[in-house]
Amino acid sequence: MYENKPREKKITRSHTVQDQSNELHKWTLIAFMAVLTAVAVFMSTMQASAKIKREGLETFVLKNGMQVVVIPDRRAPVVTHMVWYRVGAADEDPGQSGNAHFLEHLMFKGTKNLAPGEFSKIVARNGGQDNAFTSQDYTAYFQRVAVDRLPLMMEMEADRMRNLVLTEKIVRPELEVIKEERRSRVENRPEGRLGEQLNAVFYLAHPYGTPVIGWPRDIAALNSKTAIEFYKRHYAPNNAILIVAGDITAEKLKPLAEKYYGSIPAVPEIGERQRMVEPVPQTERRVTLKDPRVSSASIRRFFLAPSYSKAAPGEAEALDLLVQIIGGGATSRLHRSLVLDKKMAAGAGAWYDSNNLDNGKIAVYGSALPGQKIENIERAIDEVIADVLTNGISKQEIERAKNTLIAQAVYAQDSQTHLARIFGVALTTGQTVEDVVEWPERIEKTTLEQVNQVAKKYLKSDVAATGILLKADKKGTAS
Amino acid sequence: MYENKPREKKITRSHTVQDQSNELHKWTLIAFMAVLTAVAVFMSTMQASAKIKREGLETFVLKNGMQVVVIPDRRAPVVTHMVWYRVGAADEDPGQSGNAHFLEHLMFKGTKNLAPGEFSKIVARNGGQDNAFTSQDYTAYFQRVAVDRLPLMMEMEADRMRNLVLTEKIVRPELEVIKEERRSRVENRPEGRLGEQLNAVFYLAHPYGTPVIGWPRDIAALNSKTAIEFYKRHYAPNNAILIVAGDITAEKLKPLAEKYYGSIPAVPEIGERQRMVEPVPQTERRVTLKDPRVSSASIRRFFLAPSYSKAAPGEAEALDLLVQIIGGGATSRLHRSLVLDKKMAAGAGAWYDSNNLDNGKIAVYGSALPGQKIENIERAIDEVIADVLTNGISKQEIERAKNTLIAQAVYAQDSQTHLARIFGVALTTGQTVEDVVEWPERIEKTTLEQVNQVAKKYLKSDVAATGILLKADKKGTAS
Repeated sequence: MYENKPREKKITRSHTVQDQSNELHKWTLIAFMAVLTAVAVFMSTMQASAKIKREGLETFVLKNGMQVVVIPDRRAPVVTHMVWYRVGAADEDPGQSGNAHFLEHLMFKGTKNLAPGEFSKIVARNGGQDNAFTSQDYTAYFQRVAVDRLPLMMEMEADRMRNLVLTEKIVRPELEVIKEERRSRVENRPEGRLGEQLNAVFYLAHPYGTPVIGWPRDIAALNSKTAIEFYKRHYAPNNAILIVAGDITAEKLKPLAEKYYGSIPAVPEIGERQRMVEPVPQTERRVTLKDPRVSSASIRRFFLAPSYSKAAPGEAEALDLLVQIIGGGATSRLHRSLVLDKKMAAGAGAWYDSNNLDNGKIAVYGSALPGQKIENIERAIDEVIADVLTNGISKQEIERAKNTLIAQAVYAQDSQTHLARIFGVALTTGQTVEDVVEWPERIEKTTLEQVNQVAKKYLKSDVAATGILLKADKKGTAS
Repeated sequence: MYENKPREKKITRSHTVQDQSNELHKWTLIAFMAVLTAVAVFMSTMQASAKIKREGLETFVLKNGMQVVVIPDRRAPVVTHMVWYRVGAADEDPGQSGNAHFLEHLMFKGTKNLAPGEFSKIVARNGGQDNAFTSQDYTAYFQRVAVDRLPLMMEMEADRMRNLVLTEKIVRPELEVIKEERRSRVENRPEGRLGEQLNAVFYLAHPYGTPVIGWPRDIAALNSKTAIEFYKRHYAPNNAILIVAGDITAEKLKPLAEKYYGSIPAVPEIGERQRMVEPVPQTERRVTLKDPRVSSASIRRFFLAPSYSKAAPGEAEALDLLVQIIGGGATSRLHRSLVLDKKMAAGAGAWYDSNNLDNGKIAVYGSALPGQKIENIERAIDEVIADVLTNGISKQEIERAKNTLIAQAVYAQDSQTHLARIFGVALTTGQTVEDVVEWPERIEKTTLEQVNQVAKKYLKSDVAATGILLKADKKGTAS
């Protein structure tokens, strides 16, 4: 599909984040945390194209509070039409985990005007593709269609923002779909099981420790009432962002947006999201899972770090560079040390989960080659981190990190949907269009000292959470 | 004070549970989980006194829904007057941890009729003692006074059930008291720091993973509004239990209860408490804290287990016996193996946190003698558990466990307050007066097979959470 290329390229990184169930999809297992990559990649594009603002990029707000972003892209007569809601799994009530994602599924189940399943059929009949996804911070719906079908998409999307009809008869079978989705993503995948437990242990109190798909007992208790209640509370134009990328201008979009979305009344009760602040971790935490289905032993470690929206100025940018240097691709320190030099790991790297409304995290990981002990993999990772902390990074490394992101960006530009997603993620996680636009300048300004400082500040293994996945024989003995 | 003796006896056990901040007190660090002990102890008393029901024990319900329990005790002309609310820290809203305990403090800050601090002064002027405590499941207030002062106590307690007055000026300084309490109980105690983190990791999702005293950032955000909102929502006669133990009968208490509490209107919105079900743990979890203030290295391990109110019939009783055999006192397997035989530990034992509205836990622990490695302590604990799982317990052991509880009970009977607390804890955690009264028969019926079965079912180290406390030098290196 249209996103294949960049996703395949980053498959390791994406898989790792999928384990945490940060974002769940309606139909396909699209590797979503490629979003992160895409953000970096797009932002670097903007750096590459220097101070040139993206031609025609515009944002405005409808009278009912709905924000609109237009990202013109004239290469083909198609558009990507997205509606993002500023609500995700982390906004669920306790004991109702999975409700946001459940509602996302149910948004395809019909309205006063459309029969269940009709929405996607119409999109397909019009030659389009549609999908939806739920993360801790947002829920989004999108279609990619020929530009002349845009009004139809807007009409249908506006319709299901207010007219969703859910009966227990419609809702029941979908709950079975969710349960099966959970089985295939978590229960049947050792990485999924470990990832979920590690995440729950990593967050001592914040709802990010709860899986987006929901805990099994919570899922079982979801119903049409919980879904409708969530829908009424959170789905409204003043809690939504319309993003249209493609063969369109703000001038042309404005009357359409007014016509279809502008008439929907705001729900003034929706205030700013208030979430708890994760307590400062005090201890080293370790989670070990032994599973006979594990093909190779692996280790991952999470460090609490700020997100773009919560970081002090410059810190998130420095973290992006740091993580690129430590674990971004085949020239990174982790890959070179564990895979190339020591030849002990099948893979090793790092990623930075930075686009969240609340805290973010840094992750490092390594998977053992057959016969290699996981203790040795861990020691090698520890050495790489210790070297960064003791000796710092080099001028060449920071320059290469910047250049690498720029080089990757050349490919990323091709995806209209990626560009739209970047703005959707940013705007639903406390950032602004300007934050996105100005990002390359901020990255460019980041100094060696800043990178070394954030390394010392956030790469603290004595308060990190480590997950270890081991192959077990049928008796449960690890090997 | 009046509870000194049994508390001192069980100081190790009590301390361990205090680390988890399961219950917090207004003024003194009373070792509260002696409650657990007391429950076992009292219940055994009832067994010792065989089928004799406690003379005059009676329970009734006022028209407004307030339950009343009378426990006659004629040895001295004093009474213990308690009001228990069916609300605790686990009922707080996310991000408002500490609110239940904060309100408990504020309940001494005056009403429409009494100036701040006046409540306790009046109790003291009348020769009484008063206190209050907050746990995950309940909040309770009590006074011990001469029986002729009972009406005064009831009048004042009823008064603050409905007439609490909180202004920001009154509330502000109390928040500083709470912060200081947190510093002295958690931040300044390595055991407190570890216990809090281990508990947060042990519970993947249930609010029992949140400390009763609250996370620091949550505490800082508490104010008169959060406290009053919590008070209005949860403090009402239909959510409260009056327990009076001492020189009184149901006949004499009834008109007093009607007069002082019966006139308070019910709050019908208060429904049954709905809490989430803790997900089934999938992994071994481990938390390590290195602190220079640690005097001796120690280890503790938590196993998820049912509580009395959630267990299948007979399981909780079997767990009580199992834990007594494994880790209850100097004849227990852990103490004999680690302290007496191997001479490696200063202490070793186990406890069962069983009186909760939701899940309970089993804990085993050991603290190293100087020069002993914590790894060896852990291995020795593992061996004790493995032996129980492989070879089971003996007939002599189960008999001794039953007898031991009965022998301890002789001393426990002396405390009027303990008896009152046993009923308060039971009734606020989903049990009934009958459950308490019939407990000894159920213990007596428990078989060797049942004990061995619960051992196999719940002592699963591969899904347990282990906390390790190590002494660190100033550089943070563990020793």
